[in-house]
Amino acid sequence: MMAVEYPEHRLTRLQALRDALYSGRLRPVQRMINALHPAEIASLLESLPADERAAVWELVIPDDEGDVLLELNDEVRASLLRGMDENEIVAATDGMAVDDLADFIGDLPEAVTQQVLRSMDQQDRDRLADVIQLMAYPEDSAGGLMNTDTVTVRPDVTLEVVMRYIRQRGGLPDKTDALFVVNRQDQFLGCLHLTRLLAEDDQMSVAEVMDTDSRPIAADTAASEVAKRFEDRDLLSAAVIDPAGRLLGRITIDDVVDVIREIGEHSLMSMAGLDEDEDMFAPVAASARRRAVWLGVNLATAFLAAWVVGLFEATLEKVVVLAVLLPVVASMGGIAGSQTLTLIIRGLALGQIGRSNARLLLLKEVLVGLLNGLMWASVVAVATYLWFRDWQVAVVIGIAMIANLFVAALAGVGVPLLLQRLRVDPALAGGVVLTTVTDVVGFLVFLGLGTLILI
Amino acid sequence: MMAVEYPEHRLTRLQALRDALYSGRLRPVQRMINALHPAEIASLLESLPADERAAVWELVIPDDEGDVLLELNDEVRASLLRGMDENEIVAATDGMAVDDLADFIGDLPEAVTQQVLRSMDQQDRDRLADVIQLMAYPEDSAGGLMNTDTVTVRPDVTLEVVMRYIRQRGGLPDKTDALFVVNRQDQFLGCLHLTRLLAEDDQMSVAEVMDTDSRPIAADTAASEVAKRFEDRDLLSAAVIDPAGRLLGRITIDDVVDVIREIGEHSLMSMAGLDEDEDMFAPVAASARRRAVWLGVNLATAFLAAWVVGLFEATLEKVVVLAVLLPVVASMGGIAGSQTLTLIIRGLALGQIGRSNARLLLLKEVLVGLLNGLMWASVVAVATYLWFRDWQVAVVIGIAMIANLFVAALAGVGVPLLLQRLRVDPALAGGVVLTTVTDVVGFLVFLGLGTLILI
Repeated sequence: MMAVEYPEHRLTRLQALRDALYSGRLRPVQRMINALHPAEIASLLESLPADERAAVWELVIPDDEGDVLLELNDEVRASLLRGMDENEIVAATDGMAVDDLADFIGDLPEAVTQQVLRSMDQQDRDRLADVIQLMAYPEDSAGGLMNTDTVTVRPDVTLEVVMRYIRQRGGLPDKTDALFVVNRQDQFLGCLHLTRLLAEDDQMSVAEVMDTDSRPIAADTAASEVAKRFEDRDLLSAAVIDPAGRLLGRITIDDVVDVIREIGEHSLMSMAGLDEDEDMFAPVAASARRRAVWLGVNLATAFLAAWVVGLFEATLEKVVVLAVLLPVVASMGGIAGSQTLTLIIRGLALGQIGRSNARLLLLKEVLVGLLNGLMWASVVAVATYLWFRDWQVAVVIGIAMIANLFVAALAGVGVPLLLQRLRVDPALAGGVVLTTVTDVVGFLVFLGLGTLILI
Repeated sequence: MMAVEYPEHRLTRLQALRDALYSGRLRPVQRMINALHPAEIASLLESLPADERAAVWELVIPDDEGDVLLELNDEVRASLLRGMDENEIVAATDGMAVDDLADFIGDLPEAVTQQVLRSMDQQDRDRLADVIQLMAYPEDSAGGLMNTDTVTVRPDVTLEVVMRYIRQRGGLPDKTDALFVVNRQDQFLGCLHLTRLLAEDDQMSVAEVMDTDSRPIAADTAASEVAKRFEDRDLLSAAVIDPAGRLLGRITIDDVVDVIREIGEHSLMSMAGLDEDEDMFAPVAASARRRAVWLGVNLATAFLAAWVVGLFEATLEKVVVLAVLLPVVASMGGIAGSQTLTLIIRGLALGQIGRSNARLLLLKEVLVGLLNGLMWASVVAVATYLWFRDWQVAVVIGIAMIANLFVAALAGVGVPLLLQRLRVDPALAGGVVLTTVTDVVGFLVFLGLGTLILI
């Protein structure tokens, strides 16, 4: 269990910036902004409402614009791009790493994409070739994450030669922790870690020192799979290869970190029917429209639950107490179910739940549900008796509670697994389907029993 | 928006392993396990029920045991440690990095801790000293994340000397991307990146080549703050210093990645009242007990909502239709509120929401709520009229819907901010408090209006 502390200093910084903005004196604002790292400027922009965001964006120095755009979440980036003309956008792209550039261009409107590509065509054709190659891979695959700035060496040369080569080259790409060893067919053989290069006798050959355990990643591997691999193996970088084993590029940990963050946010936001790229300060109309869909889906399911209650109108007329207790039935089922659901969704995201252990998990959750059902059923029954002095009602809600938590456990495990098999994201649809099941079954049992016993 | 694909191959592997386990032939199981990386073995163990977990754990080769224990989540690790005698535990600790060792020992029962420390005392006293030093820092602080295996150089020596020194040392610690430059007082001056060390003329001095932009991190910095810094600056490692600026150790990205993953899981799990270290296959009794607390809290709030409904028993007796529509009122408020709540909780975790922009965010969310309120109020009103052919009831639920979504927005923003100021984790308590507010207010308005207009 870790205590999450919320980054305070960002807020004081935000406060200071907005004060300065309102004071109208833009100099200090500009000084503040340009003292920040692009990622920090991006975070600031995301924290500002549309108009102030635009004002601050104007003050970002052109050299930083590209990097800031890359750090922004998709929605905020799109909103800023709408305000830039094509030349500004083209200007923002120079100096971008090839992999970033490919993603960036991929998100641009078609017309602008063409313009950017054309403008690059005049500047550097080979960079353009790389970008187009990378754009062929989906953004959430190893190919989409990789960069093409790899430095390769042959296995038969000595470390001394490698070091001379690096000096001639005049440096190594950012985040280089290892050189890749390839054969004449450009096929990946292994990694030469800089730490080894520096530590070993420089008369040894690359083949003697290289690390052959580090397995390369196929270009079509899913980003989430790549992230897991980096986490499990504590990698700083990894080679990406084509089906023939030829080296295509390398993935560095800094890009993987973004994927890990995104996966984490995806489950959280999806469970509320939100997109992890949601702009906190999206225009009211836009947000309203997006949320409306989710509310609509939920309304349909709510009416379904209401319809079930409606089936027992006659009973409710006679025993109005049942109506009073409806909220208890509904919420206990919902809460118990969502606990199981969340556990399963995390397990799925970690790749720890499959056919092989699903049955066992179901059994365990059902037992947990029954235990809590028995316990809370008695509590609820007693509370109900003390409230209404009617032991029949107490029995009815008690039994309903047990059934409800039993069903909640079944649905909590079953719904996400079923959705996944149907290729529907369990994190997104799980909650709605689950509460529908728990509400409907809960009301059926509760009011059904009520009708049998009390009428 | 990224499509999260669930790591399939882990599941096939899991399946194969469990089949082999059941076949009873342990040889193949052992071969399978020892072909895996410790982190992958850990993930497998987390995916197995208690008895099989114990069986597989027996087959892990002693050399891997330490690493596997470190990769396991706290709860599963504790369960395995209970099954090991002190000598086995002591054996598992050798070869552990000092920072891991400190965390590991910190989680052991007191008696064992003493034993481990004593056994180390005989082996290597200086390592022990480091461990005890690190144990002084909270696990979720920079001091708790750092390792003491730093390699330092003086600013006045040449790169050639540094390289000779590295060869004499016989290597560099794992994950070293830079050496730290310190003065005679051991105060941090800057980083000498290996890439620069290799690229620059070896007659240049360290002072000429070192990177002085990389700011060191204070030992008491919160882990979440460290994670943000690494993400924003794309760091691979960072120096940790004491208040006097003296170098204490270094934090490497691989440890930060775990923090980022934990923060992501924390929000998700907390919102369902779960701990991110929750063991999927925890004993039924233990899980039931833990969940019971959450259900109990929720039950209390559910009875509060029921009590509100009870206030209108007379009304419900006369107009039972209102009872039928209760689920619609409750669920629309809950869903709308949880969408806003989730947005705010993410914003807080990212440090993007504070006094300075909270009011604006509240305004935006309220407007979104009102827009959707108006829209869905009319839909619900029409649906209700078509169902019950009673325009008065239609009006009542319509108005209630607007009020409900308005309150949901207010509470969705207000509750988490209030909780945070009270130093209560909004992710944990936010949902319960929110639904209580939306239920109570929703029922009050709906049934209150019903009483006024329909009676």
